[in-house]
Amino acid sequence: MPSAGILVIGNEILSGKITDTNSPYLCRELRGLGIDVARILTIPDELAVIANEVRALSDGYDHVFTSGGIGPTHDDLTMEGVAQAFGRAVAKSGTIAARIERAQGHAPNASQLKMAMIPKGAQLIDAGDLWFPVVVVENVHIFPGIPELLRKKFESIRGRFRGVPVLLKRVFVKRRESDIAEILNALLGEFPELMLGSYPKIGEEAFHVLLTLESRDAGYLQRALDALLRELPADAIHRVE
Amino acid sequence: MPSAGILVIGNEILSGKITDTNSPYLCRELRGLGIDVARILTIPDELAVIANEVRALSDGYDHVFTSGGIGPTHDDLTMEGVAQAFGRAVAKSGTIAARIERAQGHAPNASQLKMAMIPKGAQLIDAGDLWFPVVVVENVHIFPGIPELLRKKFESIRGRFRGVPVLLKRVFVKRRESDIAEILNALLGEFPELMLGSYPKIGEEAFHVLLTLESRDAGYLQRALDALLRELPADAIHRVE
Repeated sequence: MPSAGILVIGNEILSGKITDTNSPYLCRELRGLGIDVARILTIPDELAVIANEVRALSDGYDHVFTSGGIGPTHDDLTMEGVAQAFGRAVAKSGTIAARIERAQGHAPNASQLKMAMIPKGAQLIDAGDLWFPVVVVENVHIFPGIPELLRKKFESIRGRFRGVPVLLKRVFVKRRESDIAEILNALLGEFPELMLGSYPKIGEEAFHVLLTLESRDAGYLQRALDALLRELPADAIHRVE
Repeated sequence: MPSAGILVIGNEILSGKITDTNSPYLCRELRGLGIDVARILTIPDELAVIANEVRALSDGYDHVFTSGGIGPTHDDLTMEGVAQAFGRAVAKSGTIAARIERAQGHAPNASQLKMAMIPKGAQLIDAGDLWFPVVVVENVHIFPGIPELLRKKFESIRGRFRGVPVLLKRVFVKRRESDIAEILNALLGEFPELMLGSYPKIGEEAFHVLLTLESRDAGYLQRALDALLRELPADAIHRVE
């Protein structure tokens, strides 16, 4: 299956001033598309760190998505970092510069021109009604940190990503985790390809553990679910979804 | 200043089923204590990946905090991963096993005993009224993924971490980022140690950009703020906090 790495760039996340909602969004969307997110990494606005980590993620996974660090100010270093990751220079994109000029009716100032500086040879993909395109270098898709813009941009290019979606069943259990752990181990013995998660819930009255069963194979998933429900005591099952 | 790395362990985060609220919490708390969080990494429940990344974070930063992957089920691999990171074995902790037995009034079953298996030589730190202590190996603090428990545990050991807190001023600006970028660059020229963030806001009526000025030196911060307020057009300032 296609794999992905997410790189969140921004001091504001690490300092706790802003909560990253972009990586949870991307995880949900990519899951729906059948892409396996293998890691999420959040790093500061530092050029060398960005370059190193972009390169490592690009080498490690099929798709890379960056969030943050594009814009006109001093702390916007993503374009330069991605360029450096691949040994490229940044250069002015005539397309983007012209769009900035058209959008505001006069020539861009120096800070606005900074936003037209992108890695050489980058691919530009138009994103709906946004004047700034998605910039793609190798397998790295560069997104802004502003959640509204990131979502619009992802929506506009989601058709480029396609795996086999993972199917999910959820079983809510009225037992403690340690009381059913042996049943889960036996289930995995029988269904080694099953993705099985076990999550205790605190403060829930009706159940203590949420089990998630996942597979890309509907028949396999159903057989595993049937086997689990046979093994669990009937009065331990709160509900199945 | 002391630095920290946060390692979030869990397929449920990467698959988008659960949103990680632990790393935002730790970022805020550590910021308040004056500890610089240098990176957050989210990885799957895979033993070798956990071991490698624990080791890398432990080598790179003063403190490491892990979230998730401790418990009685098959997907709880953090203890073994941390042990492997430092070339240690896991061994049964008599202390933890005795507590499990006392808490439930009879001998632990095999799954519960799994929770007593911790890296050899680990330090145990009692956490308030929780029966399971914080387990510390070298500079790695092992926390559970359940947010309520993680918070209780962090609260109980926060006295161990102390840097010089970062002071923050916020300026809400009624200009676009590209219109003030030159002023920000000049400010950083004059105050190179200033931590300066610039965050455009979409959908805000009263301002367009939030500027954050930060320093551990109150006098330096005030001088930088004064200089910024002198340079910004008076009608561009929405408010200062």
